[in-house]
Amino acid sequence: MYNLFSIKGGVCAPNGFFADSASAGLRTDGSDDVASIYSDELCDVAYVFTTNKMLAAPIRHFLAYENFQTNFVLMNAKNANAMTGQKGIDDINFILDSIKEKHTQISNPVMSSTGVIGVPLNTKAIIDAGFSLNLSNKNSANAAKAIMTTDTYPKEIAFKVELEDAKSFTIGAMAKGAGMIDPSMATMLCFITTDADVTSLEMQKHLDKVTKTTFNAISVDGDTSTNDTVLLLSNKKSGAYDSEAFEFALERVMKNLALLMVKDGEGAKKLVAFNVTGAATDEEAETVAKALSDSLLVKTAIFGEDPNWGRVASTVGASGVECSEESLSVSFEDVVVYQKGQILFDSEQENRASKIMKRDEFSVNCDLGIAKGSFTAYGCDLGHDYVSINADYRT
Amino acid sequence: MYNLFSIKGGVCAPNGFFADSASAGLRTDGSDDVASIYSDELCDVAYVFTTNKMLAAPIRHFLAYENFQTNFVLMNAKNANAMTGQKGIDDINFILDSIKEKHTQISNPVMSSTGVIGVPLNTKAIIDAGFSLNLSNKNSANAAKAIMTTDTYPKEIAFKVELEDAKSFTIGAMAKGAGMIDPSMATMLCFITTDADVTSLEMQKHLDKVTKTTFNAISVDGDTSTNDTVLLLSNKKSGAYDSEAFEFALERVMKNLALLMVKDGEGAKKLVAFNVTGAATDEEAETVAKALSDSLLVKTAIFGEDPNWGRVASTVGASGVECSEESLSVSFEDVVVYQKGQILFDSEQENRASKIMKRDEFSVNCDLGIAKGSFTAYGCDLGHDYVSINADYRT
Repeated sequence: MYNLFSIKGGVCAPNGFFADSASAGLRTDGSDDVASIYSDELCDVAYVFTTNKMLAAPIRHFLAYENFQTNFVLMNAKNANAMTGQKGIDDINFILDSIKEKHTQISNPVMSSTGVIGVPLNTKAIIDAGFSLNLSNKNSANAAKAIMTTDTYPKEIAFKVELEDAKSFTIGAMAKGAGMIDPSMATMLCFITTDADVTSLEMQKHLDKVTKTTFNAISVDGDTSTNDTVLLLSNKKSGAYDSEAFEFALERVMKNLALLMVKDGEGAKKLVAFNVTGAATDEEAETVAKALSDSLLVKTAIFGEDPNWGRVASTVGASGVECSEESLSVSFEDVVVYQKGQILFDSEQENRASKIMKRDEFSVNCDLGIAKGSFTAYGCDLGHDYVSINADYRT
Repeated sequence: MYNLFSIKGGVCAPNGFFADSASAGLRTDGSDDVASIYSDELCDVAYVFTTNKMLAAPIRHFLAYENFQTNFVLMNAKNANAMTGQKGIDDINFILDSIKEKHTQISNPVMSSTGVIGVPLNTKAIIDAGFSLNLSNKNSANAAKAIMTTDTYPKEIAFKVELEDAKSFTIGAMAKGAGMIDPSMATMLCFITTDADVTSLEMQKHLDKVTKTTFNAISVDGDTSTNDTVLLLSNKKSGAYDSEAFEFALERVMKNLALLMVKDGEGAKKLVAFNVTGAATDEEAETVAKALSDSLLVKTAIFGEDPNWGRVASTVGASGVECSEESLSVSFEDVVVYQKGQILFDSEQENRASKIMKRDEFSVNCDLGIAKGSFTAYGCDLGHDYVSINADYRT
């Protein structure tokens, strides 16, 4: 038994964690573009990185550590430090070594970047900003704001978990990312802090499992960034831990942030859950659900608030999984429009389905009618704003 | 040795082929929406159909024939006759049987449809239109126009092939399709006629080979339709044939139509060739080339005329093939912006690359620097018009 309470404070909610932000002048409006997370105890670390083979310099820098603990993460927006070769890694070492000279309590610092690909970092500006960070501040909201790129609002969350023995621990997190999937290219970053008494190995197990149904179940544009990163840091200060409660809370944190990302998808107005059931396997259900959430024709139909179930059926058929016209059923929320070979899309059903499409959030359900495999993917519409945002992102 | 001459007449250019169109009132503006191809000799047939598992009724109807010859293809726009179950096939049989009673010279007729999914055909209207078709007409241009959906112009082509022995044969074709890939969902249809003296088996071999580098190398939106069809009909009337010349001419016909489709991609303004070289295998090169032509972030950058080579590099890395930052090179036409780990994107190169992006047609070249695998895919930009067309396609 355990209880979960939503609390304030984001990454600073767990005991012993601090966050701050500063401006390195990377944003033309002068707002903060550098952020930090600091822990007054060394942290165990678990992580998930992009599957993109062009790993950005910060990820290659991180992976050069072995079995390490850290107490400091430096983040910057506007420049991904990707496709920058050995110089990209040398720049990170120069930045972090310089900041360590000023903030001597830092140990094994790591860096995380998001922004344009293929442009060297302005090391001097980032070091100056790093000097001005106050490692005793608990400015989680400012840090969450500083790492935004095309996000329209900052994303942070925290839960307190009370265990049976009157012990408790806390998980806090912040994330950015608005144009990504699986996750993807405008870069999805997520930093999770906890004072739970949990080891790297144990955290990694939970993180890998929960990532599948949260960050890897969302889609904005089907691209995969060079920089996507989830870092989970534990400083163990609460002395409390329960495996089941921890995974439950971690799932709540990550699902919550993942859905915030989809809702804030570039130009997106609608959050759609694609529930696929009755597939031959869970893997086939995942293939279909992601095909639906990635399909341009489905996404533009959602933008147009058009209950175009034919595009849904066609996308199922195009996904390559075991399926048939005779066993498939399609519904929008509880409005069944196609059932095992029967078209139920009369004007009354069309009317009901059209009303559902006008909602901000709804589900599209496909029962393949084969076996018991299931998966839910989350997607959004694709409209004119997506095109406008991405046509001139670099400039 | 052989010579190719571009000639007029589309599918009616080969000896013994006829085409016509009529209105079944499926289009609200009353323009022709039904078309026919007729041959005064029975034809051998080769074909390529969609890989979508929700095969539309016309394709399932076709596949029920075994080793057959035909002399008549009926086409309609505005209704795909897909997801219509056994009724969809019964409707086709009813339509074709009825039309055969009027036009008794028809033998083993087949049908091909494009349009909205999941709506029963108006059989009476299509039969009436079928009655009014004149099988002695050579109205290829009208037929090409009648099968259009979101296409902005009809697509037809023909070549006369002169062989060494003073013999010659002709290949003609028409196609429709503007929102497809591999090919895809707004449905790509292509009908090719020839009087070459070539068998089904021989044609099928050439068609399968040429499809890979033509229709399967183009992308508008990454979706795959329930109805995609390429039919190749030979009535052998010329008595002439040469395998090499036939394949060369077929490749010219299909490449030409494929590029016309991309150029006419829904809302597209630019035709881009993605040349991938230096991959571990041709298959890996194809994976990368198609990832580039399908990437939303690349397509919107092209729309924005932004030489965003970082998105190109990131898409290569995300495609899953063997590649590295150190061996990759990227150029826009002949302007190299990234070469084996070196960023060459200074303001002069950016200026030159930006000028290339303003062209209607250009190439994006990625040399993976691994081995000799190569493939070229053709894509287009994705802009506001694509969203507008697809948000309200059904209505």
